[in-house]
Amino acid sequence: MDFTDYFPVWGKLTPIQQKRILGAVMTRTVKKGTVIHNGSMDCTGLLLVKSGQLRAFILSEEGREITIYRLFDRDMCLFSASCMLRSIQFDVTIEAEKDTELWVIPAEVYQGIMEESAPVANYTNELMAARFSDVMWLIEQIMWKSLDKRVAAFLLEESAIEGSRELKLTHEAIANHLGSHREVITRMLRYFQSEGLVRLSRGRITILDEKKLEALQE
Amino acid sequence: MDFTDYFPVWGKLTPIQQKRILGAVMTRTVKKGTVIHNGSMDCTGLLLVKSGQLRAFILSEEGREITIYRLFDRDMCLFSASCMLRSIQFDVTIEAEKDTELWVIPAEVYQGIMEESAPVANYTNELMAARFSDVMWLIEQIMWKSLDKRVAAFLLEESAIEGSRELKLTHEAIANHLGSHREVITRMLRYFQSEGLVRLSRGRITILDEKKLEALQE
Repeated sequence: MDFTDYFPVWGKLTPIQQKRILGAVMTRTVKKGTVIHNGSMDCTGLLLVKSGQLRAFILSEEGREITIYRLFDRDMCLFSASCMLRSIQFDVTIEAEKDTELWVIPAEVYQGIMEESAPVANYTNELMAARFSDVMWLIEQIMWKSLDKRVAAFLLEESAIEGSRELKLTHEAIANHLGSHREVITRMLRYFQSEGLVRLSRGRITILDEKKLEALQE
Repeated sequence: MDFTDYFPVWGKLTPIQQKRILGAVMTRTVKKGTVIHNGSMDCTGLLLVKSGQLRAFILSEEGREITIYRLFDRDMCLFSASCMLRSIQFDVTIEAEKDTELWVIPAEVYQGIMEESAPVANYTNELMAARFSDVMWLIEQIMWKSLDKRVAAFLLEESAIEGSRELKLTHEAIANHLGSHREVITRMLRYFQSEGLVRLSRGRITILDEKKLEALQE
């Protein structure tokens, strides 16, 4: 599989536009834990994931984190190219959650094509709308859901992504996803353990009762 | 001033597109308090504010509210036409905060033009990016800022919008903007009053010490 199979609306580009992108796109392989983009960097470019997993999050002045969305195979990240749209007034950090292969499309190349191509502009719209929906979901979670439900939902999501009930996850990592504190997450997980929902061991959480976790998250 | 002066990128439409919009646009005048759009409604259409003030908010199942952005003269609202973009997976309610004059552009007309016109699609992108920035700002507020700072910032924002230090605002209304409870807001405002920042009277809050409020919000 090639870049042209991964790039959305490829068939709706003119041959000149296709050539312009192919001449500018770069491949990158990053190790788990690498920060690919952070708010203070220059415009990194659009990221198109070939394989792996990325996490976009925001940081508070005190260094607290909260995950705003994740990117998997074939997903494209706009906000690492926020210089492209002057109305984007916020910074995200993008980190590899797994070893990841990706393509980087320079922002000015994509922007040039977007400005002249209605299909690319409309695709960009759909992309932003999808991320917007993620963020609205997050606001609803933060505002109306208690932390026990959010932790339950996060463990189930992780289990689905990994295809395993045994999760290699520190309490710190969960806190950083959910915008909470490690101590608070530890307390919650111990409560889950006492209820027979999970088993905790060093750097590892094993889901024991998926049904009860599912009931809890609602 | 006419619709064509308010509609963005008007000059970049073809004569046929201009005619299509002019043949479909409707004017509407709504009283303060009117709900113009709510999540469960069909696609209301794009709203373009001529004069007045609108508020977009989300609702919890229990009826709690939180304001996600506000619209003033010349602002356009996309999310009242969310059927246009299939990736929009959330519902907002739009309410008039003041008597408002607006234009309604049917979603299918705008969508048809957006699909063929790169300038309209790119304008829509900027619009969505601006709202996205509002929502990211909101997440940062909710996550990292204490409620006293948020109430102080809200009172100062209201004062700037109204051009007055005397605000006609119930505690309930503030709670609905900030996603809080009336009782919590009342307690906070009484504390502000005891510190000499505001004076409270029936349905009214008077800002006494703008400087101290500004210092508090940071």
